[in-house]
Amino acid sequence: MVRHLWSRFPTRLNCDILEVPLMLKRVAILGSTGSIGTSTLKIVEAYPELFEVVSLAAGSNLDLVTEQTVRWHPKVVSVATEEVAETLRERLKHAGVKGTRVISGEAGTVECATLPEVDFVVSAIVGVGGLKATYEAVKAGKSIGLANKETMVAAGELITAEARKQGKPILPIDSEHNAIHQAMRGGRLKEVERVWLTASGGPFLHTPKADFEHITVEQALNHPTWKMGRRITIDSATLMNKGFEVIEACRLFDLPASRVEVIVHPQSTIHSMVEFVDGSLLAQLSVTDMRLPILYAMTFPDRIPSNLKFPVLELKHLDFYPPDPEKFPCLQLAYEAAEKGGTKSIALNAADEVAVAAFLEGGIPFNDIPATIRHVLDETPEAHPESIDQVLSADAAAREIARKHIQELRSSVVGLHS
Amino acid sequence: MVRHLWSRFPTRLNCDILEVPLMLKRVAILGSTGSIGTSTLKIVEAYPELFEVVSLAAGSNLDLVTEQTVRWHPKVVSVATEEVAETLRERLKHAGVKGTRVISGEAGTVECATLPEVDFVVSAIVGVGGLKATYEAVKAGKSIGLANKETMVAAGELITAEARKQGKPILPIDSEHNAIHQAMRGGRLKEVERVWLTASGGPFLHTPKADFEHITVEQALNHPTWKMGRRITIDSATLMNKGFEVIEACRLFDLPASRVEVIVHPQSTIHSMVEFVDGSLLAQLSVTDMRLPILYAMTFPDRIPSNLKFPVLELKHLDFYPPDPEKFPCLQLAYEAAEKGGTKSIALNAADEVAVAAFLEGGIPFNDIPATIRHVLDETPEAHPESIDQVLSADAAAREIARKHIQELRSSVVGLHS
Repeated sequence: MVRHLWSRFPTRLNCDILEVPLMLKRVAILGSTGSIGTSTLKIVEAYPELFEVVSLAAGSNLDLVTEQTVRWHPKVVSVATEEVAETLRERLKHAGVKGTRVISGEAGTVECATLPEVDFVVSAIVGVGGLKATYEAVKAGKSIGLANKETMVAAGELITAEARKQGKPILPIDSEHNAIHQAMRGGRLKEVERVWLTASGGPFLHTPKADFEHITVEQALNHPTWKMGRRITIDSATLMNKGFEVIEACRLFDLPASRVEVIVHPQSTIHSMVEFVDGSLLAQLSVTDMRLPILYAMTFPDRIPSNLKFPVLELKHLDFYPPDPEKFPCLQLAYEAAEKGGTKSIALNAADEVAVAAFLEGGIPFNDIPATIRHVLDETPEAHPESIDQVLSADAAAREIARKHIQELRSSVVGLHS
Repeated sequence: MVRHLWSRFPTRLNCDILEVPLMLKRVAILGSTGSIGTSTLKIVEAYPELFEVVSLAAGSNLDLVTEQTVRWHPKVVSVATEEVAETLRERLKHAGVKGTRVISGEAGTVECATLPEVDFVVSAIVGVGGLKATYEAVKAGKSIGLANKETMVAAGELITAEARKQGKPILPIDSEHNAIHQAMRGGRLKEVERVWLTASGGPFLHTPKADFEHITVEQALNHPTWKMGRRITIDSATLMNKGFEVIEACRLFDLPASRVEVIVHPQSTIHSMVEFVDGSLLAQLSVTDMRLPILYAMTFPDRIPSNLKFPVLELKHLDFYPPDPEKFPCLQLAYEAAEKGGTKSIALNAADEVAVAAFLEGGIPFNDIPATIRHVLDETPEAHPESIDQVLSADAAAREIARKHIQELRSSVVGLHS
């Protein structure tokens, strides 16, 4: 069907790129019950000639993982624990599903990611939980579609070094990095002067700095463009999410932090831009639908027709602002961590996760998110982990520092009021 | 020097394009004393390791062509007539320039374009005057940097067929088509859904339709973004220039007119966009300086560092409007000519040139420009020339029809007032 659609197009001039035939891709989805996982399965559903689901790794969402297994008959499914696995086995037996092996835990996720039948791994487990499986998939020579920001922030140096060794691509599913990947095709990689990540600016783009200390959880959760999880929504409000993306861009495209810039663009229509050495920029525009970057990653180096059309004639205004480092100190913290790398990047992510959780629980005010991260960065010795285990230890250590700091902050507040 | 600048950049991931070393390009410049020609020579001056001027073809601007010959010592220079050539020879002798052969006329231009030493031809002679030399250059297997819109409008079918046969690229220097060429690199050519030409909208974007009949020459010459020649400025005011670009895009990229769209974008910051079948668009942004597309065309498939930087952080607003076919009938006429091709495209260009000249002389009102073109299109029988001579005959015939029509218009106006 896809081929048929293509046959409408005549051969064109100025084409120096050879054609590669589309081949069936056999896919592992890590994080199948999350938002990226379910979007990935929608794509598999839309293009059954192109994709086959080999394995699914999920957590504890039993109803959804059962439904997905019944629908897709993967060879292997992994869930959070052996207990969840046992219940899933029962349900599958009851549903008459045969031939799917159910496993569990981190080892199960790693097995899903490294099965010999798998060509392409969608890495979409949130947090550092997806780190080990992603690294093992890269080591096993799989092509990766990467939706897990923490993986690149915490272990980007290790993972890209391994991918380089394997000669396999890491295709970003984050809309910004996906945009950069697309725009980078407009030149050779050494012809890139810098990349421009666009940022929606979050709900506090026009809030005066003085009001930041009174920002409530409800205000912070009200993101103008994307519907997302709670942590990433707060990270968008502090611009820390953009900070993580700066680090992700540095690692994915092997750029120093000084060559990764941020520009605020509230409409999120331009998803990012690449500036070339000659002075030309290429920008990628599309609807804000995660299926687009997933589809791009899954079909690269091809593009296939979708119905996710951008209504160009309805374009009205695109606005841009330089980011305000005074109002969004998290962005500066991220640049610092991007430059130093290693444990500093790990600490940034870990401290942010702990601080945002504390903010969401009402434990600390909004401005203490960057204050906590600042403290953890300062307290974390600079080092460059050489294994995923070392990454995970550094992560745990940074979380501990963050938790202690937050406890101190809270008891000093209690002290003041007592 | 260029290599040295590049050596700053580390090798990057996700690179599947092999590197090609930069080689000296030996250049012929057709139209060397015009705006594109002088910009091309500025580029040669800035990158002396990369370019060598082999030949220059000019008209009758003796002072400038003398200066250029003294500066660049080309092997061959061609000027409009033997009389101009004789004066130039005298001047060169006086200036002590040896080793430059001075020739003249159309045969001279063709010789400049087809010298065996020439690798790359910048085709920038305005009007159908550059047509034959461009075609002969393509036939001789040269790579072309094309700044001459008329060439593609009048003879695009012949020229692209020949370029395809030779396997050599035609690199557009028009900023819009250059942008499309850049953005097209983001996918395979059969993955292009359509291209979006941006239009500044000209000085009458917000003028009510009722006021169009009173538009004066001074108003029409006042273009908001680009400084250009008189005819192209009027063509921008009628949107006929965009219409020519629609045809140029059809021919250059082998697209039907239905796949070439126009969107008004007054800031001219996005120079054009390519929409891919998956729903992604790539847009090219840069400063509005013709040296950029020339540099791109001259260095393709490489990009080299320039100081023509786009100040991204100064971006404020980009505005977009759908074009208004009622106010700008020339655009519709161009779509009609684009679809039919052959003599209809030739007639469109010829009729427009004659009508615009008449308008500039105060001979006809603004609204009679599209009326004249409409008439000439209707009176021109559809045919598909198979040689440049046939193209030139069709061009002459269309001009004759246009002149007669304008004469009738003028005498009927005189008649009314007498």
